[in-house]
Amino acid sequence: MIIILKENQPKQKVEEFIKGFESQGFTVHRSQGVHTLLLGLVGDTTKLNIETIQANDLVAEVKRIQEPYKNANRKFHPEDTVIDIAGHKIGKGHFIMISGPCSVESEEQITLVAEKVKASGASMLRGGAFKPRTSPYSFQGLRAQGLEMLQAARGKTHMPIVTEIMNTSHIPLFEDVDIIQVGARNMQNFELLRELGHLRKPILLKRGLANTLEELLMSAEYIMAGGNENVILCERGIRTFETSTRNTLDISAVPMLKKLSHLPVVVDPSHAAGIAWMVEPLAMAAIAAGADGLMVEVHNDPKHALSDGAQSLTPEQFDMLMQKVKAATAFFGKTLN
Amino acid sequence: MIIILKENQPKQKVEEFIKGFESQGFTVHRSQGVHTLLLGLVGDTTKLNIETIQANDLVAEVKRIQEPYKNANRKFHPEDTVIDIAGHKIGKGHFIMISGPCSVESEEQITLVAEKVKASGASMLRGGAFKPRTSPYSFQGLRAQGLEMLQAARGKTHMPIVTEIMNTSHIPLFEDVDIIQVGARNMQNFELLRELGHLRKPILLKRGLANTLEELLMSAEYIMAGGNENVILCERGIRTFETSTRNTLDISAVPMLKKLSHLPVVVDPSHAAGIAWMVEPLAMAAIAAGADGLMVEVHNDPKHALSDGAQSLTPEQFDMLMQKVKAATAFFGKTLN
Amino acid sequence: MIIILKENQPKQKVEEFIKGFESQGFTVHRSQGVHTLLLGLVGDTTKLNIETIQANDLVAEVKRIQEPYKNANRKFHPEDTVIDIAGHKIGKGHFIMISGPCSVESEEQITLVAEKVKASGASMLRGGAFKPRTSPYSFQGLRAQGLEMLQAARGKTHMPIVTEIMNTSHIPLFEDVDIIQVGARNMQNFELLRELGHLRKPILLKRGLANTLEELLMSAEYIMAGGNENVILCERGIRTFETSTRNTLDISAVPMLKKLSHLPVVVDPSHAAGIAWMVEPLAMAAIAAGADGLMVEVHNDPKHALSDGAQSLTPEQFDMLMQKVKAATAFFGKTLN
Amino acid sequence: MIIILKENQPKQKVEEFIKGFESQGFTVHRSQGVHTLLLGLVGDTTKLNIETIQANDLVAEVKRIQEPYKNANRKFHPEDTVIDIAGHKIGKGHFIMISGPCSVESEEQITLVAEKVKASGASMLRGGAFKPRTSPYSFQGLRAQGLEMLQAARGKTHMPIVTEIMNTSHIPLFEDVDIIQVGARNMQNFELLRELGHLRKPILLKRGLANTLEELLMSAEYIMAGGNENVILCERGIRTFETSTRNTLDISAVPMLKKLSHLPVVVDPSHAAGIAWMVEPLAMAAIAAGADGLMVEVHNDPKHALSDGAQSLTPEQFDMLMQKVKAATAFFGKTLN
Repeated sequence: MIIILKENQPKQKVEEFIKGFESQGFTVHRSQGVHTLLLGLVGDTTKLNIETIQANDLVAEVKRIQEPYKNANRKFHPEDTVIDIAGHKIGKGHFIMISGPCSVESEEQITLVAEKVKASGASMLRGGAFKPRTSPYSFQGLRAQGLEMLQAARGKTHMPIVTEIMNTSHIPLFEDVDIIQVGARNMQNFELLRELGHLRKPILLKRGLANTLEELLMSAEYIMAGGNENVILCERGIRTFETSTRNTLDISAVPMLKKLSHLPVVVDPSHAAGIAWMVEPLAMAAIAAGADGLMVEVHNDPKHALSDGAQSLTPEQFDMLMQKVKAATAFFGKTLN
Repeated sequence: MIIILKENQPKQKVEEFIKGFESQGFTVHRSQGVHTLLLGLVGDTTKLNIETIQANDLVAEVKRIQEPYKNANRKFHPEDTVIDIAGHKIGKGHFIMISGPCSVESEEQITLVAEKVKASGASMLRGGAFKPRTSPYSFQGLRAQGLEMLQAARGKTHMPIVTEIMNTSHIPLFEDVDIIQVGARNMQNFELLRELGHLRKPILLKRGLANTLEELLMSAEYIMAGGNENVILCERGIRTFETSTRNTLDISAVPMLKKLSHLPVVVDPSHAAGIAWMVEPLAMAAIAAGADGLMVEVHNDPKHALSDGAQSLTPEQFDMLMQKVKAATAFFGKTLN
Repeated sequence: MIIILKENQPKQKVEEFIKGFESQGFTVHRSQGVHTLLLGLVGDTTKLNIETIQANDLVAEVKRIQEPYKNANRKFHPEDTVIDIAGHKIGKGHFIMISGPCSVESEEQITLVAEKVKASGASMLRGGAFKPRTSPYSFQGLRAQGLEMLQAARGKTHMPIVTEIMNTSHIPLFEDVDIIQVGARNMQNFELLRELGHLRKPILLKRGLANTLEELLMSAEYIMAGGNENVILCERGIRTFETSTRNTLDISAVPMLKKLSHLPVVVDPSHAAGIAWMVEPLAMAAIAAGADGLMVEVHNDPKHALSDGAQSLTPEQFDMLMQKVKAATAFFGKTLN
Repeated sequence: MIIILKENQPKQKVEEFIKGFESQGFTVHRSQGVHTLLLGLVGDTTKLNIETIQANDLVAEVKRIQEPYKNANRKFHPEDTVIDIAGHKIGKGHFIMISGPCSVESEEQITLVAEKVKASGASMLRGGAFKPRTSPYSFQGLRAQGLEMLQAARGKTHMPIVTEIMNTSHIPLFEDVDIIQVGARNMQNFELLRELGHLRKPILLKRGLANTLEELLMSAEYIMAGGNENVILCERGIRTFETSTRNTLDISAVPMLKKLSHLPVVVDPSHAAGIAWMVEPLAMAAIAAGADGLMVEVHNDPKHALSDGAQSLTPEQFDMLMQKVKAATAFFGKTLN
């Protein structure tokens, strides 16, 4: 950690400030510039509160050198993490395709979509039971009943299921889900993250609309600090000034997250674009940029979908997409499973 | 609602599409342009799913004309809402000053700060017991114990208390709190909003870092739809590309929210700026722009604060701020109480 | 164009307002809703000033249905535009690779880089002579002399040259340049765009840091309205809240621009990322998303580059990149030339 | 300047790297951490190219400690700059009100508006002759003729005139203008800034839509480096994700710019809001936050304005605003002149 002091501070106060750190066991290097004194702190600075130091009148600026996350950090875990979900692997060359409707609408609907996407080559089934909706007057999902329908669809297709959790009190209901998804709006719902850290189930953690990659990794760290190392990161578009797409897919997030962390990275082109015809080019870009998986919305009848119809593919469109995904993953050296 | 159709669509499909709306009781006006057909839907369109309509192949674009919120909408409630918190009113010319430390650290600390800010003229005491922190390794608040300390400070100073809730399961602990705060990171924690709608306690709802004013009002609507009309909106800065301040205070939010809604609007200059010296000019700007209250962080010893020290005022600085707040609220026609 | 009137406006004023449009030759359709009257204007609305209409007291909102650009619009020009630059084609399956240093530093340097990148398979040579720099104290480019050095390098390698213009008064100097580049900071330098419209030389138009795709197409329209239809669009990253990359590459811009316009689209992964190691994954993503070309910075000695060293590839790194670009363009059905 | 080296770099290369700086006359302090070596460079680092240093393989990160601007920096010029424009002062407690129409439309119009705003108490007249418009098909201003009309209006009212320049070639036409405005879209038109540095006329420099305050100060530095110290900074709203206002007024820019620089700061609430009714609350906020002046659009007939009608006040509305501006500037200790 580097601490840059303000100019012309009283010598005695500076000495006391430095001694404060030394008494906590840090070694403090000084570098006197023309105008400013720099302090370099050596020791385990993760326990130091950066804000408290900044509040000191002597201090102009504080800069961390080490990333503030450990478990998620590739430096301390150079090998790619591989997560196995009922026989489907993700990470280190293993690629998964998660697909299904935005919302579970009925057992028939989810089973039908499951059968279709499985036939086209999808690895896992997604479907929302608890739905975060901007309006209290919109369809809120079938909730517990929706989870049962998902499980029924899994029973018939043997596809692992992925679905979103919105509250700690629902955790018992998710016991028989294969991957628990944390949605973008809950990326910094720290109470929820902490509880999910006590499970051993894979967590698909979506990046918040206005969260930096460092914040995403810190949220992964919340889960991992509890002992649950099965975290899959998901880029799904960020909020910018551009209005022609629903969100702006931050494609750089894929190589950057893989550089900073050993965790697998999935891309959701459906939410990023918000437009069905754009799913394919963004899916191709995600594979090319190094993603370990995709999450794509498919609905048997998008015109009558209860949510997100505009960005859902039909099973026929998904089948065409899968042909391209198969070819592209092979070209870029990934194994779809 | 206006629906803009794509060019050159098959006549029969268009007629079926229109009949679908008519059979739901809507009147559909047509306006044939050179290239496009516009449909104007007359009726209660709040029950219509805009995404489903957009998913129809015929449709180029859909545009709502009515705002999607009702209870929070000034159109249906032209008078300013006034909320009474233990004798302190907010709204319609009544102005409140909420202040206190970011985190409750001990009973002595919170009581000391409470006494100081009360002496300077603050209306209510803030203090965090449950703290949303980016890092799992940062101080997470004293939780239930912190709530008790706040109540003890209230006992000695008779100041109403404001504190943040992070999870539905904690609601019973907040029974004896005067205003429950929903933080920026939970603005779209819809499960939490829905439960708070079942209370009758005032809710201070902070705008999310990347949420539009319409989304803020929709989150207020979640609470109000449950029957709790005591919602106070709070602008606390949004995330932009600018880095010299912690966030960018969206000062236009004050007049815009007051135009769109009848709910009171509070500004938090401490979180917006993230720098203690900037609290005063932003506080003045907020009063000048029409805010109904301010929320300002004050700490007895910012250098040793467990969180947010850099943006906390000392009690002495707060006392100077209060002199200016008193003068400015009087100048702009507000009554501090 | 749709005009949404405010509620309960005086009938006579509304009739006068409508007659105003009818007297200009428009047909006006009315659609009376429960609260609001909608007007649908039929006719050539490009000559109408949307701001003037919005300023009318009767008007709640105005919405264009037609895009405000014509020459750049795919609707009026469904075929992909192909531009030929000294025998190298771009567009409709033809792919170009532009590369070279950020700044021309000497004749030896630019010739050396030109020979290296040509050997690896680059189509064209880039190099900045006039450099837009944030600081007046940074290296500002070799200016006219730099242009001569570029021409010398072209003389030896027969590679067409691409270089940036910053002011209308420099146009005569650019007579012997193959593609004139308009940088991000000048995307809305309308005086410059207008003058470039009078040339017949290809213009590479870079998207501004905070400009929407519609604004980019409007800037292309400025050039095309003057008669110069040889415009190449370039996505080079936009400014967002994310700080781990220099800019955020908006990969969706590629398919969206190609949907809205017939003009070729090039991606600049070097400026988008600002980091040399990230150029490759972003280049792959751009090809996968459908780009017609890439622009990549290469420097013989990045450590001693006078500008943008951190994002420049060495010739060796570029050679490895070209192997992948060759394979990927072939895989995605493009012809590198 | 601080240079943070990557972990475990070869000792000899590090020594050579350090010697490189020492040979340029810098003193280099070393601070060896557990993992990393920090270098603190002492000397005049403004001549160092930060990008070149970052490009070195040894380097993890480089951090400037000194601001990169000198002439605009309050550190080297602690006193507020006061600029005198034909007897009207701005800065150090002196406040100016600039107003007039977006565009000059005719001599009658500009003279009428000038007389009205002068009668209400405005200090200076604004009016656009050269207009930067997104569309090539929109009204582009009366250009040279418009400048003459402005001068005619000045002749009758004795108000100094402020108008925007868009190209270096127009500089001779602006000889008889009192303040030359550089618009947001040209804030980084460095060729233009450099030329304006050779004048001695006051320059009103507007912040770009997506430019940081540091970049704004660097653009001021371009002008000042040429010897023209008469720069007035203008905050006019930045581009964010919020859509209810045209731009987001960054009110924190006012106190921050005044902290970092000695130059006067003006706020343009008309462009920030884009809505006439919001001009007043934003104007009040700007005065409260410490602005040295305001720039407000006024049109004799906003409904028929050729540009920006939606945000223009009528002369009557402006008269009411001026009553409030007079009271508020007096309350906040400024002298309107």
